[in-house]
Amino acid sequence: MTKKVKIAVIGASGYTGSDLVRLGARHPHIEIVYLTANSHAGKPMSGVFPHLAGLGLPDLIKNEEADWSKIDAVFCGLPHATSQAVIKELPGHLKVIDMSADFRLRDAQTYARTYGNEHIAPELQAEAVYGLSEHYRHAIRNSRLVACPGCYPTAVLMLLLPLVKSGLIDATDLIIDAKSGVTGAGRALKQNILFSETGEGLAPYAVGTHRHAPEIEQELSLAAGQELVVNFTPHLIPMSRGELITAYARLSGGKTAGDCKNALAERYADEPFVAMAPAGVIPSTQFVRGSNNVMLGVFEDRVPGRVVLISTLDNLIKGSAGQAIQNFNMMFGLDETCGLEQVALFP
Amino acid sequence: MTKKVKIAVIGASGYTGSDLVRLGARHPHIEIVYLTANSHAGKPMSGVFPHLAGLGLPDLIKNEEADWSKIDAVFCGLPHATSQAVIKELPGHLKVIDMSADFRLRDAQTYARTYGNEHIAPELQAEAVYGLSEHYRHAIRNSRLVACPGCYPTAVLMLLLPLVKSGLIDATDLIIDAKSGVTGAGRALKQNILFSETGEGLAPYAVGTHRHAPEIEQELSLAAGQELVVNFTPHLIPMSRGELITAYARLSGGKTAGDCKNALAERYADEPFVAMAPAGVIPSTQFVRGSNNVMLGVFEDRVPGRVVLISTLDNLIKGSAGQAIQNFNMMFGLDETCGLEQVALFP
Amino acid sequence: MTKKVKIAVIGASGYTGSDLVRLGARHPHIEIVYLTANSHAGKPMSGVFPHLAGLGLPDLIKNEEADWSKIDAVFCGLPHATSQAVIKELPGHLKVIDMSADFRLRDAQTYARTYGNEHIAPELQAEAVYGLSEHYRHAIRNSRLVACPGCYPTAVLMLLLPLVKSGLIDATDLIIDAKSGVTGAGRALKQNILFSETGEGLAPYAVGTHRHAPEIEQELSLAAGQELVVNFTPHLIPMSRGELITAYARLSGGKTAGDCKNALAERYADEPFVAMAPAGVIPSTQFVRGSNNVMLGVFEDRVPGRVVLISTLDNLIKGSAGQAIQNFNMMFGLDETCGLEQVALFP
Amino acid sequence: MTKKVKIAVIGASGYTGSDLVRLGARHPHIEIVYLTANSHAGKPMSGVFPHLAGLGLPDLIKNEEADWSKIDAVFCGLPHATSQAVIKELPGHLKVIDMSADFRLRDAQTYARTYGNEHIAPELQAEAVYGLSEHYRHAIRNSRLVACPGCYPTAVLMLLLPLVKSGLIDATDLIIDAKSGVTGAGRALKQNILFSETGEGLAPYAVGTHRHAPEIEQELSLAAGQELVVNFTPHLIPMSRGELITAYARLSGGKTAGDCKNALAERYADEPFVAMAPAGVIPSTQFVRGSNNVMLGVFEDRVPGRVVLISTLDNLIKGSAGQAIQNFNMMFGLDETCGLEQVALFP
Repeated sequence: MTKKVKIAVIGASGYTGSDLVRLGARHPHIEIVYLTANSHAGKPMSGVFPHLAGLGLPDLIKNEEADWSKIDAVFCGLPHATSQAVIKELPGHLKVIDMSADFRLRDAQTYARTYGNEHIAPELQAEAVYGLSEHYRHAIRNSRLVACPGCYPTAVLMLLLPLVKSGLIDATDLIIDAKSGVTGAGRALKQNILFSETGEGLAPYAVGTHRHAPEIEQELSLAAGQELVVNFTPHLIPMSRGELITAYARLSGGKTAGDCKNALAERYADEPFVAMAPAGVIPSTQFVRGSNNVMLGVFEDRVPGRVVLISTLDNLIKGSAGQAIQNFNMMFGLDETCGLEQVALFP
Repeated sequence: MTKKVKIAVIGASGYTGSDLVRLGARHPHIEIVYLTANSHAGKPMSGVFPHLAGLGLPDLIKNEEADWSKIDAVFCGLPHATSQAVIKELPGHLKVIDMSADFRLRDAQTYARTYGNEHIAPELQAEAVYGLSEHYRHAIRNSRLVACPGCYPTAVLMLLLPLVKSGLIDATDLIIDAKSGVTGAGRALKQNILFSETGEGLAPYAVGTHRHAPEIEQELSLAAGQELVVNFTPHLIPMSRGELITAYARLSGGKTAGDCKNALAERYADEPFVAMAPAGVIPSTQFVRGSNNVMLGVFEDRVPGRVVLISTLDNLIKGSAGQAIQNFNMMFGLDETCGLEQVALFP
Repeated sequence: MTKKVKIAVIGASGYTGSDLVRLGARHPHIEIVYLTANSHAGKPMSGVFPHLAGLGLPDLIKNEEADWSKIDAVFCGLPHATSQAVIKELPGHLKVIDMSADFRLRDAQTYARTYGNEHIAPELQAEAVYGLSEHYRHAIRNSRLVACPGCYPTAVLMLLLPLVKSGLIDATDLIIDAKSGVTGAGRALKQNILFSETGEGLAPYAVGTHRHAPEIEQELSLAAGQELVVNFTPHLIPMSRGELITAYARLSGGKTAGDCKNALAERYADEPFVAMAPAGVIPSTQFVRGSNNVMLGVFEDRVPGRVVLISTLDNLIKGSAGQAIQNFNMMFGLDETCGLEQVALFP
Repeated sequence: MTKKVKIAVIGASGYTGSDLVRLGARHPHIEIVYLTANSHAGKPMSGVFPHLAGLGLPDLIKNEEADWSKIDAVFCGLPHATSQAVIKELPGHLKVIDMSADFRLRDAQTYARTYGNEHIAPELQAEAVYGLSEHYRHAIRNSRLVACPGCYPTAVLMLLLPLVKSGLIDATDLIIDAKSGVTGAGRALKQNILFSETGEGLAPYAVGTHRHAPEIEQELSLAAGQELVVNFTPHLIPMSRGELITAYARLSGGKTAGDCKNALAERYADEPFVAMAPAGVIPSTQFVRGSNNVMLGVFEDRVPGRVVLISTLDNLIKGSAGQAIQNFNMMFGLDETCGLEQVALFP
């Protein structure tokens, strides 16, 4: 018999929230009790997201209308700053999976510098576990509050962490050229994500200043055992979903691209959501879109002593809602793939 | 305990074949034993479709390499003409779900006129059941050979059949403006479906001559009890998946758009895959993409006595592979939604 | 020697305004003296539209900063309601080419009913000439205030006016299925035109209620000599530029699709911006994008006695800024093609 | 009075050929006498490219049907290998602007290794001038045969040549992440450029092996005065036109991003087709699409001592047909901007 965990999705009117609902509605151990979205309170979810019609979802309510005593776990899809304010007030019996940026950075000063506001829940920041599922399983299983990594950091760290840890590449000389679909920017209205501005075009943005860079550096530094600074240059691609990282690294003395490939293949051999690109295939976002999968590839560079490293994922799934559910599964002792079995939708 | 039906997918290297595999790989009562594709025989499926890596699929083989005695059912994703030649040679114990056009038309002459070749298996053509799931359940359940409808006919008939049958609209004056994503044209190389030809553009095609028109007329004529000719004008839209029908009809004397809406809502009230658009929502392909759902909408026309009727579906799922599995479920006494529970992927 | 007309573009920060500037900057008889955009006043035009860098354009100013005595003509790219308020205050020596909806409807009540606000300049509404270039040349040449038609009405009327006038089709039974790229919705922030909402999808909108329908009916009724109501159903297509009309009409007794084709070919034989589709070609938006051209096609319907009529244009050029310049050329006695010679940009 | 140069376009049925025709048809000093395309000989150009209807173009013929004595100059849009075979046979009075790869590489062995065939016209290879307009003006003006650079090399070299020459960056440590629209792959049928394969996705390709890398290295090595090897990693973007380079470089001792910016701004101060991004703007393909412009940007990297360099152009114009005409203008003593004044088409 299937025991269900009663959950609420806070901030269900954004893309990460709605994708959590989409996945949660079919998860055999999830019962969606509350959906909150202050600006849409009172509406049916299908009025805000018609693709979610017919799922028997509760109507949207305000946060304060929820009776938290009826709930076991909360997924939070609010913007940063708002997220910490809301989570701070939640009762302690709730397990919390936060998809915002509020608890990803381990250091309060780095947070303030990066996001421009003082953290108002530093004790929670200290408690939170960084939810990169495949790399922090033990901590996630024993946590109450998980901070799901950003979409870019997930794609980057899945690719680079094992190589930095093993010393196969020079962690002090990393170039990370990142490409993302437009859902990465959320559903809030901004001119640069209008169809007419983004379609049939390609735009670098936040060059040198993107907020995911400190998060990437935090985790790579931990792995390397030294403070690192990395290049991180994101580009907006005219597609809705999908993210691809092309990283350029210097190989450690005598090491080869083949060594890197083997190291990654070995590290992730038993991982259900991580695959090396099949022989002769270069990772493309289309191969993982709609799934919780990461696809990795390692390629020889023309430049001797260098290697080209590629990873790709669906930014709303493995980069957000899917990884959140993967973490939830761990926190509640469920099979990690539960509710995440969807094969990529191609084309 | 889960009993599995052993299946083969013939013609697994096209989009309908690959989408069948995508869905079949997660279907609890399907075991994929063979995948055939003569031109790719010997390759792993992930070499042809990297998004299907990691599913433990058999390698592609030639049709003649299959031992049909090990198989219970066959899904056929071949092009028309080829399909009938292959299916004709299959042993009689196999249940066959054909996704080609070869067995959709009930009349051999209409077939020959429409597709330009004589039918070589007229006895099978006579035996085949037209697999519009929600409308021919009894026949499908008792059939050995099901001809899945074309993607356009599915979208049109789900919308118009109940209205024609009930006499709410004038069946002799139907305008059907159809829009499809590019996967509707398949994976074979043609200049007009290159990205550069189709992207950032919109193109009507096969105006007055599309092969799905006789199929639509066949079924509407049956429903109306008289020979009908209808307008059918398809347009190619710069998107990969999705199909939308905008049909324009004259209301029967005294009838209203509201009557049509009620008739459709009532007809499909218990159907898991058919939904009326939520209040205030106009059907859009994005609301059904990636699901087996059809969404219907009825709208008042500015012109008195007229009504605007809209339906939308994912051409590769409800318009092909999904409906094929829905029919398979019926043929094998399974729950009709089995393996088809995926919620639409938006955005 | 080239005499230049001194112009201002009011409302230069929208897409119609910027496309006017793009074309005007290369027009041999235009000198752009002022660009106004109240919300962006003080900025260089290249800060708002980087593709217009390097053209030596004046910075954006507020309307009240302009010295109208230095100007000969004004192009107005403001939204409706705002446009009439601004134009009402302009000095009388200025020729005005308005690209908003404010002066398109000849009847004040129809305007109020359609746009939801009382017209505050009914005397100008009466004075204004409807700027469908190829059909109202004499009036445009002698006008002071031209109301450029909406993009949809231009595409529809270029196609249907000659056929309605000649009585070849039944004007009382017209179905107009319209498809537009996303720039048709302007640059103002709206959720439904975000890339993620529109991309990889297709959405009908304003079914039965679009504001361009009364404008179409006004002009068709004039041509037919009777009050007409027509179906008009617009769809949003995932492309930035381009518009395509598929119209369905009943032929008058004994008339054929060939008659319609000949009538259109003859009517537009000497028009530089109107072409019949080449033999074997169906009009597509890609064939006119970036040009001031309209392409027309006539096709036999499957339904006896019916015809399928297609037109396509670039909504920002022939549907707005290009036609505005064409009218300007007429108003100032210039060659009508001046500054509008750009060939369509394909792909 | 306008003197016209009589030209032929050889290989007019590809995208570079058709874009050359599009531009040439409006060039005041070009008369298009012949259009050749062996596989389409006998057809009107508008049958192959309907957007070119109404321009009074000659019908397509076979190469051998042309009377070269009537021609002054030839633009060649054939594929590599074919191009050299055809150009080798042309009479010596013709000036030739080749848009293929056949004469770009200065070394016969490098050519053979890169393109897989022996060069059959090494004497012409030696004679050919590398047509990077802004960098080889003197040679181009005095040449008979110009090899227009590849689209990627043009974008890379415009950005990096001045910085390598001036020693501001370390030429031995260059990472070049390149992104291109799909027209870069031409009009020949290939599965990976079908809309359904490319749309809503992003794919790296030819990682470490792209044929434009040796061309880039050839020119950068000349500038640096030493043999260089560079990283070059192209990505296919779901858009038709446009190319963007994100290059990552190490600054020479004590040099800054600002120094690089100044150097580029100074180098190109008088160039009509090269612009630095306006303040606060990051180059995007949309800002140059449809024009012959290159837009450059220089940005500080997070990593001390590094710089991020960006360039963008329209691959079919400045990256091919536009630069070809720019070179033609120089070869015939015309104003270099003649026929290339089109402002970028945005959106």
